[in-house]
Amino acid sequence: MPNDHDLGFLLRYENVAWYENGAVRILDRRRYPAETVFVTCRTYGEVAEAIRAMVTQSYGPFQAAGAGMALAAWECRGRDKKEQALFLGRAADALKNARPTTARKMALVTDACLKAAHSALESGCAADAAVQAYVFGMLEEKYARIAKTGRLLAEQVPAGGAVMTQCYADCDLGMLLRALREEGKEATFYVPETRPYLQGARLTASVIHDMGFRAVVITDNMPAYTLQQKRVDVFTTAADVITLDGHVINKVGTFQIAIAAAYLGVPYYCTGTPDAAYPTADAVRIEERDPAEVLSAMGVRTAMMGVDGFYPAFDITPPKLVTGIVTDRGIYPPEQIGAYLAP
Amino acid sequence: MPNDHDLGFLLRYENVAWYENGAVRILDRRRYPAETVFVTCRTYGEVAEAIRAMVTQSYGPFQAAGAGMALAAWECRGRDKKEQALFLGRAADALKNARPTTARKMALVTDACLKAAHSALESGCAADAAVQAYVFGMLEEKYARIAKTGRLLAEQVPAGGAVMTQCYADCDLGMLLRALREEGKEATFYVPETRPYLQGARLTASVIHDMGFRAVVITDNMPAYTLQQKRVDVFTTAADVITLDGHVINKVGTFQIAIAAAYLGVPYYCTGTPDAAYPTADAVRIEERDPAEVLSAMGVRTAMMGVDGFYPAFDITPPKLVTGIVTDRGIYPPEQIGAYLAP
Repeated sequence: MPNDHDLGFLLRYENVAWYENGAVRILDRRRYPAETVFVTCRTYGEVAEAIRAMVTQSYGPFQAAGAGMALAAWECRGRDKKEQALFLGRAADALKNARPTTARKMALVTDACLKAAHSALESGCAADAAVQAYVFGMLEEKYARIAKTGRLLAEQVPAGGAVMTQCYADCDLGMLLRALREEGKEATFYVPETRPYLQGARLTASVIHDMGFRAVVITDNMPAYTLQQKRVDVFTTAADVITLDGHVINKVGTFQIAIAAAYLGVPYYCTGTPDAAYPTADAVRIEERDPAEVLSAMGVRTAMMGVDGFYPAFDITPPKLVTGIVTDRGIYPPEQIGAYLAP
Repeated sequence: MPNDHDLGFLLRYENVAWYENGAVRILDRRRYPAETVFVTCRTYGEVAEAIRAMVTQSYGPFQAAGAGMALAAWECRGRDKKEQALFLGRAADALKNARPTTARKMALVTDACLKAAHSALESGCAADAAVQAYVFGMLEEKYARIAKTGRLLAEQVPAGGAVMTQCYADCDLGMLLRALREEGKEATFYVPETRPYLQGARLTASVIHDMGFRAVVITDNMPAYTLQQKRVDVFTTAADVITLDGHVINKVGTFQIAIAAAYLGVPYYCTGTPDAAYPTADAVRIEERDPAEVLSAMGVRTAMMGVDGFYPAFDITPPKLVTGIVTDRGIYPPEQIGAYLAP
């Protein structure tokens, strides 16, 4: 675990996944914070399965995919170069396709890891160490970038204000909280629980509370009333994908809170950067997960047998409902976010 | 139990509460459909406590309050008339104030029961039987009225169409389903689970499935996406209160689904009749319940200790978001619903 990094306090809340000595360990976010347990993967296939099974979420799969590539490099050590290249290619395919909605974005990580592994192999170095070094570098770069984003978002929050979130914005949330703390601003956070996995109640509320702010959990039918009655100043989320034309793909529920926020005049700031793989939302495939998940809560069946379920994991918020997209280079009107990539 | 009534099939799904031989039995809707158990109350105070503790919900508290008045009449039998009147007055106060949001509407039931009891006492008859007869008559009148409402609402649902509900519209839902069945129309119902009590998953989905229609449960963050992707034809709810100027007070979540429905062009039909006690929404006090309820699911804590909760039980949907209010006398534009009382 990269304990020597300056930003250990954020790693604590993130979907920590790291490679070390022939294994990838992943914090089981399905059980945190009730329990802090880790899933240990001995093959890249087990890492792909852990990603598919949502052991880790939001940014976690990207970190896990990188760690999975380091593990794959270790798995095929000692084979000849050609076999190693084939093996690593199969690992990249398995890891990037573990969750369909983010496959293209995940490919950026697995492709870069492949490149780092190939360079190491060409020069006769250990490929697992090279991939691990790449993944840590990626993390450092990410933290530095999101710290800037957090400061810009914090400027939108009045002192003593109220903020609403949706799902878990991991590092983006951590950096917002750190920026508010640096500025000496208090704020109350209203946190929809985010069924069925309860990322809001379990993760977002924990980070907010741990960092000394007031976290108020609500159920997912309460955001509109809460925005109105608690005079919320800002609604903010991260995004799984931001298209070049400003559509935000994020945890299901974001769309309806954005509609309510627009209706009530509450600004919605999304954090993140656009994804060149998605010019528009047309190319986005919204993942539908096992309907059984919405028919139970905390492991207990809620509906009668014979009743069906529907579980879209994400939804798509159009640019007209987004006030601004907060990046490390400034806040963009959503329709102009494509310019981030061509500054 | 009034098994001799034609409409036993609806009573089965309703918040059944009835008085018989010195006791009120109430179906425990907090546990149904996982278990079908009844709470037995031996005093009107126990009935008021059961209402407060949400043993029964939606129309159930009104039926329970009537049954509680019959029980109160039985409790004070044999005392002198003056003492009986005092006792019944205290019972009416306790029962109607068991849940603050609906106190005024509940007073209509308890006041009528008081009147029935006093008439019986004046003429030397048994007050408990008189109150029970009044309550059964109230139920019969209600069923006849809502059957008409159900037929008008069914006309708004295209054959093979898709309907979204919120919370549990008890008799209004049963009569809609019966009307669709009579017309030979199929329909798919999308049912938000309605946290924290899960009335949608537990009750609404059960009734729909039992009556032979497809029920698809979603979590409370999915209505907007589902309205859009499943091309839902009609959003419909009952109401705890409809004000004379067309505001709908109903289970929290109704407001945000109504906002999303308006945004997406899906009509929202509310069933019910206006309440003369509420000219506008200003007089409505939205009940806030124990925040601990939103911090757990199916009895298991979801959030870290130290995290707060907020639990408004209802919200207020303004008339501009309501397409029509469906009554036994026709469908009213919400702004004109006051005319229902002065036809």
